[in-house]
Amino acid sequence: MKLPSLSLLSAVRRGVLQSNKFVTLNPTTAPLLNKYRLHHCSADSKMLPRISFSNDFFFRQLFDTESSTYTYLLADLNTHEAVIIDPVLEQAKRDAKLVEDLGLTLKYALNTHMHADHITGSGWLKKLLPGCQSVISGNSGAKADKHIQEGDTVTFGRHTINTLATPGHTNGCMTFVVHEQGCVFTGDTLLIRGCGRTDFQEGNSKSLYENVHEKIFTLPENFRIYPAHDYKGQLESSVWEEKQYNPRLTKNLEEFIQIMDNLNLPYPRKIDASLPANRECGLYDIPKE
Amino acid sequence: MKLPSLSLLSAVRRGVLQSNKFVTLNPTTAPLLNKYRLHHCSADSKMLPRISFSNDFFFRQLFDTESSTYTYLLADLNTHEAVIIDPVLEQAKRDAKLVEDLGLTLKYALNTHMHADHITGSGWLKKLLPGCQSVISGNSGAKADKHIQEGDTVTFGRHTINTLATPGHTNGCMTFVVHEQGCVFTGDTLLIRGCGRTDFQEGNSKSLYENVHEKIFTLPENFRIYPAHDYKGQLESSVWEEKQYNPRLTKNLEEFIQIMDNLNLPYPRKIDASLPANRECGLYDIPKE
Repeated sequence: MKLPSLSLLSAVRRGVLQSNKFVTLNPTTAPLLNKYRLHHCSADSKMLPRISFSNDFFFRQLFDTESSTYTYLLADLNTHEAVIIDPVLEQAKRDAKLVEDLGLTLKYALNTHMHADHITGSGWLKKLLPGCQSVISGNSGAKADKHIQEGDTVTFGRHTINTLATPGHTNGCMTFVVHEQGCVFTGDTLLIRGCGRTDFQEGNSKSLYENVHEKIFTLPENFRIYPAHDYKGQLESSVWEEKQYNPRLTKNLEEFIQIMDNLNLPYPRKIDASLPANRECGLYDIPKE
Repeated sequence: MKLPSLSLLSAVRRGVLQSNKFVTLNPTTAPLLNKYRLHHCSADSKMLPRISFSNDFFFRQLFDTESSTYTYLLADLNTHEAVIIDPVLEQAKRDAKLVEDLGLTLKYALNTHMHADHITGSGWLKKLLPGCQSVISGNSGAKADKHIQEGDTVTFGRHTINTLATPGHTNGCMTFVVHEQGCVFTGDTLLIRGCGRTDFQEGNSKSLYENVHEKIFTLPENFRIYPAHDYKGQLESSVWEEKQYNPRLTKNLEEFIQIMDNLNLPYPRKIDASLPANRECGLYDIPKE
């Protein structure tokens, strides 16, 4: 199996360790020592101290019932600059109203990837809140004001989102990390006790598995996981929980690929409408209500 | 209009002001100075600093899609003692598994009130996690291991839940406050941009209005509101937001009563099954899956 590049891993770990708020990586999880062996977390690691949000960090999770999508509004409470992650078209008015009610300025609408199960709210939010720019991976195949790649940062006020390329569900999947706040936005790459499917678009089980293990599971174990979806009323998780209890990603690579090859999921209901719209709507007009 | 008792208000404010983490109450919201006048928050109050969760406080919000109910699992990360607020019968297995996965000990299953729209998970959680005790207001009409009234405290590890009687949706409605963490669990008394209906059980619009204004809206404005339900994908709010934007509770009492009298809501779909079960299930067997 190909080893992750040393430069990438050290970059991830530099990010992880740059603040004294972060716990030291458990040696058993250091990726090059014991790659993919995740069942040796000590009992103590269940109860790692919380990394608290700083008092100038605004965080609000939102939900779209129809597509079971989570949207995240983050802001700097001093400068009032805000970003939204994975907005949903049908909720754009709700989200724009919240931004206005709170007196925030929406700087960016970020998408973790080009979604197949709903139309992004980026396009409509750009209309509702002029000045907002759409952001997505350059590998996504979608138009946007700003294309990003791994290592790029997105800032709002004094806060910084670090970006990791985590393809596997789609080629353009990215994971967003706010190190100081201990939170990770995993899109469809890593879900709570699950992961995104790999049987359409540019799905690749091996890539997904390796990216989760190399780039997400190597983050501090008390980092909180915020996915793009959940279908069982679970709102968040942690790196530790998913390393310990994710029924797919705790398997070895071969077992994982077998699981993913045999999910027999139905054709995504909204994919034929969503993909063409999501290719364009970072930049162009989208249908009215 | 009857003024709130001074002793109660001063108790609430003592709680509010006991830690230097809390912001000073905005003078315009001091309840006896400008009772129910809520539209004069300064623009600055939009951006009050966050009260961060302490690093030994575990918080996990959960959702039941069928009844749109939010359940909250709280724990002390040092002692591992946990409480759950407003569990739902159909999710009791999910919640018990999470408690076990996290290595927590569930001490109490609390209900903010006797629900009419779902059956509480308290009874089943008591079976799944022996040692757990059910808790509800003595005014609720429901059986439980522990009946509480305003001023009682519920502790888990070093953390304390303060209880406020906030009848109006039902006689037994309580609001739970964790002052140090700046969070308020309002049950059906105060919802995000809404409130519980007052047209069945012991509903009383005047009581609900007065309790919200006297006991919840007098808390620090950056306290986060966690309700028992939401139907629009909103997961949390703040005292400030509801004082500013709640479309019902920003009205005066007479207008509020008129709004509540004219909602013309359908008969609660699950009330005939829920109320008899909820009267008993804090103590007795509930049907198997």
